[in-house]
Amino acid sequence: MTAAETIEFKTKGDGDIIDLTERVQDAVRATKVEAGIVTVCAIGSTAAITTIEYEPGLRHDLPALMQRLIPAGVRYEHDATWGDGNGYAHLRSALIGTSFTTAIEGGTAVLGTWQQIVFLEFDNRPRSRKVHVQVVGE
Amino acid sequence: MTAAETIEFKTKGDGDIIDLTERVQDAVRATKVEAGIVTVCAIGSTAAITTIEYEPGLRHDLPALMQRLIPAGVRYEHDATWGDGNGYAHLRSALIGTSFTTAIEGGTAVLGTWQQIVFLEFDNRPRSRKVHVQVVGE
Amino acid sequence: MTAAETIEFKTKGDGDIIDLTERVQDAVRATKVEAGIVTVCAIGSTAAITTIEYEPGLRHDLPALMQRLIPAGVRYEHDATWGDGNGYAHLRSALIGTSFTTAIEGGTAVLGTWQQIVFLEFDNRPRSRKVHVQVVGE
Repeated sequence: MTAAETIEFKTKGDGDIIDLTERVQDAVRATKVEAGIVTVCAIGSTAAITTIEYEPGLRHDLPALMQRLIPAGVRYEHDATWGDGNGYAHLRSALIGTSFTTAIEGGTAVLGTWQQIVFLEFDNRPRSRKVHVQVVGE
Repeated sequence: MTAAETIEFKTKGDGDIIDLTERVQDAVRATKVEAGIVTVCAIGSTAAITTIEYEPGLRHDLPALMQRLIPAGVRYEHDATWGDGNGYAHLRSALIGTSFTTAIEGGTAVLGTWQQIVFLEFDNRPRSRKVHVQVVGE
Repeated sequence: MTAAETIEFKTKGDGDIIDLTERVQDAVRATKVEAGIVTVCAIGSTAAITTIEYEPGLRHDLPALMQRLIPAGVRYEHDATWGDGNGYAHLRSALIGTSFTTAIEGGTAVLGTWQQIVFLEFDNRPRSRKVHVQVVGE
């Protein structure tokens, strides 16, 4: 059995972290799949999906880490091509990845207590975003 | 068809790398699934799952890389919130990711010869860990 | 229903980026699966799979980023073990990851317009590579 749902939301631009956990769990429950796999896919190339403890300290630390490893505000060849200044956002997306997959057990996506599924916005402007939640199981 | 198994083990704390390959392959074989997908999920927010050649050189190099990119022993806002000093561990987990997915072919998880599935412990103390292995296929 | 296909190609060595998107979409269409999950798996430990906008600027920027974060040409313990000088390649592979999973909707892998599935070669010599495309769905 397969089932899918799309989650839509708006972001504030680079540094915004959206906690998707409840919406993903709602989507999984709605499918009535008891056991299987769920994949959460960001559609786009300037964002990422991962898991982190969603608390104010890390909501500061993760964007700060991204800025240290792959700074915005320096020149990338991508920006020379398009002039949109978001080369850093593409690189961060490629590094972290745009999808997250986990098991479904007892009708729920398997996560740790302090482990939330998050959408990371890297683009240099507010965006309307879509995330695809796909379930396969029985 | 879906099937799952939980792998449990203890770690020595930050820098410990556990080779899960044989236990994952055993779990896949036990399901009798011949073709499909297997997802290996760490449950928690201070660890990661990836693949690497499990040999002594890289078992030194990978923790050294993590310490260079996301050092322990410096101040993160997370530590100000909780005082547990493991902000670096959460950030490393979010960067590498907590799950690994691959194909099943001929009843075996598809991997290269020198490619092992590993659990990366980042937390600053020994931990008892659970990894969920989920199979979907036929 | 499950189905698989292997994609084979040659690379030029470190820095080569191969756009797999059309071959993955062809493989998905060939399975006739309308809805489900597709996993694209590099077989090996010195390469990675991710998504990025496949354009000349980023094809320069991504290898440059890798060289900055995990340089080739410096000493890793792995190289002391094997003498093959590709320790950096194993570490990059472990950081980015060797597989990419996304949803299938309407018989097509779900991706953004500017989001291509790419194989990243990190090894320090040309290689013949295999990528396994596994579909599960209905």
